[in-house]
Amino acid sequence: MTRLSRRHAFCAAWLSLLSAAAATASMTAAQVIESTKPTDWRALDPDNTLVMELAAGQVVIELAPRFAPRHAANIRTLAHEGYWDGLAILRVQDNYVTQWGDPDGESPDKAKPLGSAQKKLPAEFSVPLKGLPLQRLPDVDGWAPVTGLVDGMPVAADPRTGQAWLAHCYGMVGAGRDMAADSSNGTELYVVIGQPARGLDLNITVVGRVLQGMQWLAALPRGTAEMGFYAQPQQRTTIQRVRLMADMPEAERPQFEVMRTDTDSWRQLLDARRVRREEWFVHSPRHINLCNASVPTRPRTAAAKG
Amino acid sequence: MTRLSRRHAFCAAWLSLLSAAAATASMTAAQVIESTKPTDWRALDPDNTLVMELAAGQVVIELAPRFAPRHAANIRTLAHEGYWDGLAILRVQDNYVTQWGDPDGESPDKAKPLGSAQKKLPAEFSVPLKGLPLQRLPDVDGWAPVTGLVDGMPVAADPRTGQAWLAHCYGMVGAGRDMAADSSNGTELYVVIGQPARGLDLNITVVGRVLQGMQWLAALPRGTAEMGFYAQPQQRTTIQRVRLMADMPEAERPQFEVMRTDTDSWRQLLDARRVRREEWFVHSPRHINLCNASVPTRPRTAAAKG
Repeated sequence: MTRLSRRHAFCAAWLSLLSAAAATASMTAAQVIESTKPTDWRALDPDNTLVMELAAGQVVIELAPRFAPRHAANIRTLAHEGYWDGLAILRVQDNYVTQWGDPDGESPDKAKPLGSAQKKLPAEFSVPLKGLPLQRLPDVDGWAPVTGLVDGMPVAADPRTGQAWLAHCYGMVGAGRDMAADSSNGTELYVVIGQPARGLDLNITVVGRVLQGMQWLAALPRGTAEMGFYAQPQQRTTIQRVRLMADMPEAERPQFEVMRTDTDSWRQLLDARRVRREEWFVHSPRHINLCNASVPTRPRTAAAKG
Repeated sequence: MTRLSRRHAFCAAWLSLLSAAAATASMTAAQVIESTKPTDWRALDPDNTLVMELAAGQVVIELAPRFAPRHAANIRTLAHEGYWDGLAILRVQDNYVTQWGDPDGESPDKAKPLGSAQKKLPAEFSVPLKGLPLQRLPDVDGWAPVTGLVDGMPVAADPRTGQAWLAHCYGMVGAGRDMAADSSNGTELYVVIGQPARGLDLNITVVGRVLQGMQWLAALPRGTAEMGFYAQPQQRTTIQRVRLMADMPEAERPQFEVMRTDTDSWRQLLDARRVRREEWFVHSPRHINLCNASVPTRPRTAAAKG
């Protein structure tokens, strides 16, 4: 390549970059998603994905082993051994959480056995910030000095303490506990169904997030007893079963993929949520909150299936 | 009173204040509410309160005439004339909004007549910050430089533009509009049922908030058509009726009162939400978000009824 043609190529690349920037600068969120490449998406990890079946529909949960390795391992074991099959949704507190587990979990003689799962786990409220592959958000957050995404999950962090933790955004799943910080073992789980419950951050182990099916957990009747527990056993929703995706026959597995958050497309999507270019909007916040930086899913493409 | 006794009285008052401060400094949110005085609460304003009846239960909405005077007036007229009676909940989009109005509102020949209500209103997206009785929150908010409460409602503001506006927190009610900013007239209303929809702020007229009954609007089945509209008419929830509280017989009126936000008790409550003193918590955020500064209600006391 001659020097001239190299310069020409450089100019062409630069012009193409400029024009791409101009194009993305005018894209809506829908247009960004439409313009993504196959490599902007990733498949579900069968060893890291739970599928809960309710009569109403399927709930798909992605675990967070990087943040709660002991809980994630225990939850895999519990799902593998059918622990939740036939158990129930016990509690729905409006604008707060839906919680499920063993209705008899509090009575030692009636509680469902845990099989080979651990009965006791350490609290896993935070991990070291150092070394974490955090895609940092520039947007100000009142709850924490630093926020961003790791593995597509909302993370808050504090460089002064060196801690990072999963944030209680809509759809995040945690492990219920009693008074002792280390009293959760992953058998009783909850999901945030209203405004972010960030006051719970650093107080409890967050184990993952719902990727699809939140409508089946958020639209349940609220319980009328204290903390939204159901007053009558018959008000509870039965959990038909919870399986680890790896244990499911290929044909029954959820068929969708998740947008990656380490790509230009993802950064363009965040930009399109900050600056609203849809005709309807007359004002743009030029800001998003960590919890609004939620990650899209889409039906698995034919190419990805092949 | 001698000088000595006055000094003594001053000291006693000061000591009592100190001890009160020490007491409140160790109170939980529940304890703050328990320790409130009757004057820390206010009655509902019958001219400013809507009562929506669904088969499942009652939804009580407080209007915001200070922020949307023309919409509030139109909504009062619509309720007074029974506009919503027999209409329906048309749309429930998960983690976003529940919306209600006339299923035939888009067809000029079938739409329910508006009676003496206005067909066209100006957009009421913001009001001047100057002169607004804002109880300012010290907590940082990413969406706006200033936040606080006015009339118990969450308000964001920008001193540079001089604007203040109602924030789209959980339970806030707005007036749906089409493309034109001034295309809402209060007939079609929505309520936030998930994480704060602050990206809508300054884009639409907010008309009030749900004080009680959110569980009846938030737990509805999500619609499966675009934007959460119900695909089939029979999936809609019928609105039995919506009345202005002033039009209701005394015996049928909602019997609760609302905590005031211009009191020491309110400031103590916010403090108790920032610093969690319940035994369960091992970490306090020392922060609340505007949308977490929600205002409690309680059954109307016998004294207040008398």
